[in-house]
Amino acid sequence: MNRQIILVKRPDGLPSEECFKLLEGEIPELKDGEVLVKTMYLSVDPYMRGRMNDGKSYISPFALNEVLTGGVVGEVVESKSDEFAKGDMVMGGFLGWQDYSIAKAGDLIKVENKDLSPGVFLGILGMPGLTAYFGILDVGKPKAGETVVVSGAAGAVGMTAGQIAKIKGCTVIGISGSDKKNEYLVKELGFDNALNYNTGNLRKELKKICPQGVDVYFDNVGGEISDAVMTLINYKARIPICGQISLYNVKRPPVGPRVQVQLLTKSAVMEGFLIFDYKERFGEGMEQLSKWISENKLKYSENIVEGLENAPKAFLGLFAGENLGKQIVKVV
Amino acid sequence: MNRQIILVKRPDGLPSEECFKLLEGEIPELKDGEVLVKTMYLSVDPYMRGRMNDGKSYISPFALNEVLTGGVVGEVVESKSDEFAKGDMVMGGFLGWQDYSIAKAGDLIKVENKDLSPGVFLGILGMPGLTAYFGILDVGKPKAGETVVVSGAAGAVGMTAGQIAKIKGCTVIGISGSDKKNEYLVKELGFDNALNYNTGNLRKELKKICPQGVDVYFDNVGGEISDAVMTLINYKARIPICGQISLYNVKRPPVGPRVQVQLLTKSAVMEGFLIFDYKERFGEGMEQLSKWISENKLKYSENIVEGLENAPKAFLGLFAGENLGKQIVKVV
Repeated sequence: MNRQIILVKRPDGLPSEECFKLLEGEIPELKDGEVLVKTMYLSVDPYMRGRMNDGKSYISPFALNEVLTGGVVGEVVESKSDEFAKGDMVMGGFLGWQDYSIAKAGDLIKVENKDLSPGVFLGILGMPGLTAYFGILDVGKPKAGETVVVSGAAGAVGMTAGQIAKIKGCTVIGISGSDKKNEYLVKELGFDNALNYNTGNLRKELKKICPQGVDVYFDNVGGEISDAVMTLINYKARIPICGQISLYNVKRPPVGPRVQVQLLTKSAVMEGFLIFDYKERFGEGMEQLSKWISENKLKYSENIVEGLENAPKAFLGLFAGENLGKQIVKVV
Repeated sequence: MNRQIILVKRPDGLPSEECFKLLEGEIPELKDGEVLVKTMYLSVDPYMRGRMNDGKSYISPFALNEVLTGGVVGEVVESKSDEFAKGDMVMGGFLGWQDYSIAKAGDLIKVENKDLSPGVFLGILGMPGLTAYFGILDVGKPKAGETVVVSGAAGAVGMTAGQIAKIKGCTVIGISGSDKKNEYLVKELGFDNALNYNTGNLRKELKKICPQGVDVYFDNVGGEISDAVMTLINYKARIPICGQISLYNVKRPPVGPRVQVQLLTKSAVMEGFLIFDYKERFGEGMEQLSKWISENKLKYSENIVEGLENAPKAFLGLFAGENLGKQIVKVV
């Protein structure tokens, strides 16, 4: 028995539970070089919303009436590969939202860290952590003494990017949608300040707490929050575009203040990046992130939902701002 | 007698001749270290529109009821500096729109090139040429075989940027506002193709003539022309923001399609730059541009208007797309 979550309808705007269906499927025979993985944790990520649309992008769309795929940590229960043995713990970036997935050995990496929960390989030591690492360091290039603003700061990527900027000696301001999250960012993670975009006048408050302007704006959300930050950028500011979650569900191409004059008069850079751009350097990233965790310089937070059947609900929660840190589904 | 052009009114939207006035003023006494320059040519440039607004920007606004300032090539008629002698030909970036300007020796550079008209120091070997040089090479980073699109392609900066991209082995497409300009770009300057934004569907035509997409978009104009190009950018595209002339006269902050999702999904970079960012490297730029001119790899075009009194009209013509190449006013 292999429970599977299927995409049955492409969302039009905000996705709903109707887009998903839980089915029971078969487990096909293993071929040579393949491994059968029992799902322990699966990852729900904002970027998956883009794959639910039809049409060409940097990554192919999910097929209708097929199992959804994403990051999974699981246990090898059968192996026809010399690289993996029964009992190995593995991570795959594109396994199924199902109890059992078959994967080619080359698409899996062995994960082991007795001090950390296996979920970290979907979060701080997985795609979100690496996204934050390369995005803030390679694109944002923060220098000690600079002011860094992070939107979506209480998400898995945002909180990691902000902490790395702190490690680099910056003043770091987070923006999130709740006071509770902001308290966590400041008290637990050492952010210098955090603003709630749901209350008050974001631009005015930002201006008050960023008297030196903004040197790096690490953007996870886009839309009006970003419009507010953009008015405060400094000469030679860097704006890594990591995500635009506020726009993923809009039905028409989003319109807003043009950024070009601001970029021009400030000699500023706005740069999109994808984690796949850095795949040759994942090892470096994981090593540094692990080191910072062991030195207690970098903390992480997981928001764990139990049960494969709750994966759609956990995914929908991303767009309601429900998660503090990495949203994970614990399957077994 | 020193005729002077004064800014008497800040434009609200598109400037008109009412914003300017021709007066006759005095020539003050020279102090030690100063030089009296007789204006031969003066430069009118789109960026000056920004200085006509009040308010803080990367460069201070023009003062009301004061002489306008800009690039000037002239002859030294009196000198209280050891660095310059009567008869020297000099260039200054911020001399007056007047017959005679007083300048500190440190703000002038001696210019001499017997093979070229003195106007080149306001064009291909001056700010526009250097802007094109650093913008296309340092920000655009064109690689042989790539597709480069230049907007405002028949202006002083655009035609230089496009030719440099040709020198680097790219396929170069220009966008301008007239078929006559486009004929010049293709037949005289070697652009591979050129489109008229006033006729036809720009996006569709661009798509047809850029079957490989767009790797570098050198943007001088902004607005809807840029919106069309942005839909065609490739993975890892670079978008140097050099100017936004279509937006300089708008009365409200301009609104348009948000670019962030496009930058994100293409890992693309949009980067503003100012020529002052590169002031340490002006020598390098002038040397390389001169070399390309002497090798006949780089051509330039000047649009010369006669008479100081016609400087405002020449400036206004920039926004009507009247100039092919560098717009210069010949004063004597």
